[in-house]
Amino acid sequence: MQKIIAMDELQFIDFLRKKAPKMKGVIRGIGDDCAQVKVGKETLLLKSDLFIEGVHFKKKDMTYKSIGMRAVARVLSDFAACGGAPKFIGISLGRPKDICGHALNDIVSGVNFYSRKYKFSLIGGDTARSQKLFLDVWGLGTAKEFISRSSAKAGDAIFLSGPLGARPFNKPFEPRLEEAKYLKSFKVNSMIDVSDGFIIDFYRILKMSKKGALLYEDSIPCTKGKSDFYRGEDYELIFTVDKKEQRLNELKKRFYFVGEIKNKDFGYKIKRGSSIKKVSIGGYTHF
Amino acid sequence: MQKIIAMDELQFIDFLRKKAPKMKGVIRGIGDDCAQVKVGKETLLLKSDLFIEGVHFKKKDMTYKSIGMRAVARVLSDFAACGGAPKFIGISLGRPKDICGHALNDIVSGVNFYSRKYKFSLIGGDTARSQKLFLDVWGLGTAKEFISRSSAKAGDAIFLSGPLGARPFNKPFEPRLEEAKYLKSFKVNSMIDVSDGFIIDFYRILKMSKKGALLYEDSIPCTKGKSDFYRGEDYELIFTVDKKEQRLNELKKRFYFVGEIKNKDFGYKIKRGSSIKKVSIGGYTHF
Repeated sequence: MQKIIAMDELQFIDFLRKKAPKMKGVIRGIGDDCAQVKVGKETLLLKSDLFIEGVHFKKKDMTYKSIGMRAVARVLSDFAACGGAPKFIGISLGRPKDICGHALNDIVSGVNFYSRKYKFSLIGGDTARSQKLFLDVWGLGTAKEFISRSSAKAGDAIFLSGPLGARPFNKPFEPRLEEAKYLKSFKVNSMIDVSDGFIIDFYRILKMSKKGALLYEDSIPCTKGKSDFYRGEDYELIFTVDKKEQRLNELKKRFYFVGEIKNKDFGYKIKRGSSIKKVSIGGYTHF
Repeated sequence: MQKIIAMDELQFIDFLRKKAPKMKGVIRGIGDDCAQVKVGKETLLLKSDLFIEGVHFKKKDMTYKSIGMRAVARVLSDFAACGGAPKFIGISLGRPKDICGHALNDIVSGVNFYSRKYKFSLIGGDTARSQKLFLDVWGLGTAKEFISRSSAKAGDAIFLSGPLGARPFNKPFEPRLEEAKYLKSFKVNSMIDVSDGFIIDFYRILKMSKKGALLYEDSIPCTKGKSDFYRGEDYELIFTVDKKEQRLNELKKRFYFVGEIKNKDFGYKIKRGSSIKKVSIGGYTHF
């Protein structure tokens, strides 16, 4: 048996990946923003995401409607990060005794806000008593072409969909589904959303693509300063675009051009003015 | 706004059903054992089920492997109850600080036991810190013909797949997937699994089918006595078979024949010897 005494979320995912026997129908299992499976002729995305009181949010900081919205938006952001869109969403709700029907009503109306906006259906779920309020939002989506974390190429331009640190932790946010749709006509080689922090999430692309990168520090848009590079829950998209893309300027106008993919032996580096140094990896993990 | 101050699980599901806008692609939404959706040419089953420490199980009563097995078996039982089979399963895990890697290893090996046996793939999930250990198991399955709770017909014979009260709460159990497969060649009009109790779960069939029933008390197999009629978590199948079914005797040999579907105005009744009385409805709800 493997030794796995202390394990963070990244390690847990690695662990699941090794343990889970890969079977027929699974195109991408554990390790990307969504799993990708094949059923008959259809290729589907599957995803779940936990939103737990005291871990991901504090009840006193948020309305119940915002809790419902934010829990769902996090999953929608994962579909966006694969170049996909949601079709069906289910919710498993852990419900403390002190939560009344009006609160549930508000949570569901938060879910339905996005359901109407992005045309997916709420198809069910489960509910049970729990000490802490939590939502596990799971869903099925589709993507004509899956954009993975693992296919960045040397020479790719690195883009960020919006400034870091600009979106409050206790409010709903707009998942970048429109942007993901817009990107369909471009040669996007890899994509991820910023959930644990720009530096760590982009590192996941590098690790899975077996590549290095040079980031341009002065071009990375942030709100409060360099700490934003490590701030989680921005839910902006980081994506890399093939150097052969002819409409690169169009992307540079709409998004932030923040670096370039290099070969693996270059490492993970950042340039400020004319000085280049190693990136120190860090980020928030909910584990 | 509706008044929903006190709400149990049945009411919550009713509430979700009313609130969730029914959309394209949803064949059956909230309210059956699984949701049924259409993606392209494929018809799919979707389901999630919570398994929470202190609500559904006590850690001191179970091994970690059993916790993983039981959490998954509950969902497999729902696929069985729709006449289907699982294809892809995901797990969202709430993990207390005191759970070590070996415990996780055991939980995952419990999941993989069924994964190998029933040929589905573990395709991912999520994990986060939590005060109490919990698993939200969600999955995608298929059913050539969906067997609903809502299509029992007057004259149907009512069957039960196994005795009530025979399966311990703190051990893994065999979901009735083989039985569901066997039933494919019979005219089964409706089906449900016993999760909250035989009397209440069968009542769900009657309510959704707008039918009544006469149960034969002396034919209902139980282990500890009549209290088993109200015991939850048996995970046996209750199904009703059309009176035109020609191989009814074959079913009577393999399963327990426990009653007959009647018209709605007959009510929900039970016969002991020659006396017939109303059934009192009750069952355990995790809410």
